[in-house]
Amino acid sequence: MSAFIFDLDGTLVDTVYAHVMAWQKALDEAGVFVDAWRIHRRIGMSGGLLMRALSQEIGRNFTPGEGKAIDDRHSELFNKHEHAGKPLRGAIALLKKLKHAKIPFAIATSGTRPGIDPSLKALSIDSGVVVVEGKKAGHPKPEPDEFYECQSQLGVKCEECFVVGDAVWDLLAAGRAKMFGIGLLSGGTAAEELFKAGAFRVYSDTAELVDSLYQLGIE
Amino acid sequence: MSAFIFDLDGTLVDTVYAHVMAWQKALDEAGVFVDAWRIHRRIGMSGGLLMRALSQEIGRNFTPGEGKAIDDRHSELFNKHEHAGKPLRGAIALLKKLKHAKIPFAIATSGTRPGIDPSLKALSIDSGVVVVEGKKAGHPKPEPDEFYECQSQLGVKCEECFVVGDAVWDLLAAGRAKMFGIGLLSGGTAAEELFKAGAFRVYSDTAELVDSLYQLGIE
Repeated sequence: MSAFIFDLDGTLVDTVYAHVMAWQKALDEAGVFVDAWRIHRRIGMSGGLLMRALSQEIGRNFTPGEGKAIDDRHSELFNKHEHAGKPLRGAIALLKKLKHAKIPFAIATSGTRPGIDPSLKALSIDSGVVVVEGKKAGHPKPEPDEFYECQSQLGVKCEECFVVGDAVWDLLAAGRAKMFGIGLLSGGTAAEELFKAGAFRVYSDTAELVDSLYQLGIE
Repeated sequence: MSAFIFDLDGTLVDTVYAHVMAWQKALDEAGVFVDAWRIHRRIGMSGGLLMRALSQEIGRNFTPGEGKAIDDRHSELFNKHEHAGKPLRGAIALLKKLKHAKIPFAIATSGTRPGIDPSLKALSIDSGVVVVEGKKAGHPKPEPDEFYECQSQLGVKCEECFVVGDAVWDLLAAGRAKMFGIGLLSGGTAAEELFKAGAFRVYSDTAELVDSLYQLGIE
């Protein structure tokens, strides 16, 4: 294996809970109160898919216009959050170690610029790193398009890629791309759910992953 | 079975995520940044136990004075949250149905007054309902003291009690009290974790529970 593809929110930055609160408030302002745990379970999908999934669960349809307005308001609220780009424990050390070891890595996120800029900055991800944003590479997760785009830009084969993510959607997409999925608990999803979605290994967070790279044949 | 004992946060009211954010900010202000998912996994314990558990995980000790200051600041931040007492889907209907069917119920929470007052008010829980607050009945969850206190005040036997909770701590305490534990997903804990902690049944939320009472022999 010779390359890593990382999800961003909940994997490298501690933003899942802030996203949940921002979505809840944006939906509430639009007249729809959705319990937080239902939103949490959908984080990691694109905003459009999340709205579709929630509207199914709560039995209320949104027009594309309403959906976009709620998503935009969610982004606005999220960007105000004081920990909007806070790296998770171990994330910076992990990326440093890969850089030092000359192991290529990329970011594949359902988020979009400029919303993800504070996170990329906090992680010192410069323009030399492949970052595939949501909606820029075909269909969003759980479809594998974002991972294919990373793999293609990194110039490696699918079977050479580790995908690291905190959401079941990351692991489902990794499985569809025939990549080796690694789950992290740092987005608040339980280990059993990550394994069921196809994770080959599950670690607490990037701090545990950086100490466990030898288990993946990397030192 | 003839009585219900309910946890409050994450079981009847949608407050778990607001508690996570309030704890994170209070800890951050005290100079300790803890990733949100680690806090989430400890919600439902008393504030004191949560601080002890976190300090173990992050390898940083707090004096009792520091612990209390952080807990107080957490309560202050939580109370400012706009959804501080928002009932979860189905919670009001469930309590109404039990009242109507003359099935006794009580609340056993790690929270304390006045922090829990908005939640009790939103749920129309009046002075006629047994409410056992944290720290008022011996040791907090996962010890069974709060549930024993409810059972005693309700005048029923332990084996007649259903305990309904969203956290593994509720179910561990229910098991120790020889009560019948029912898990809900509405606090963001996965079904597998609730079953492993001893849940006999797991439902999505109080809305699913109210439709499933017949499965518990109640109509």
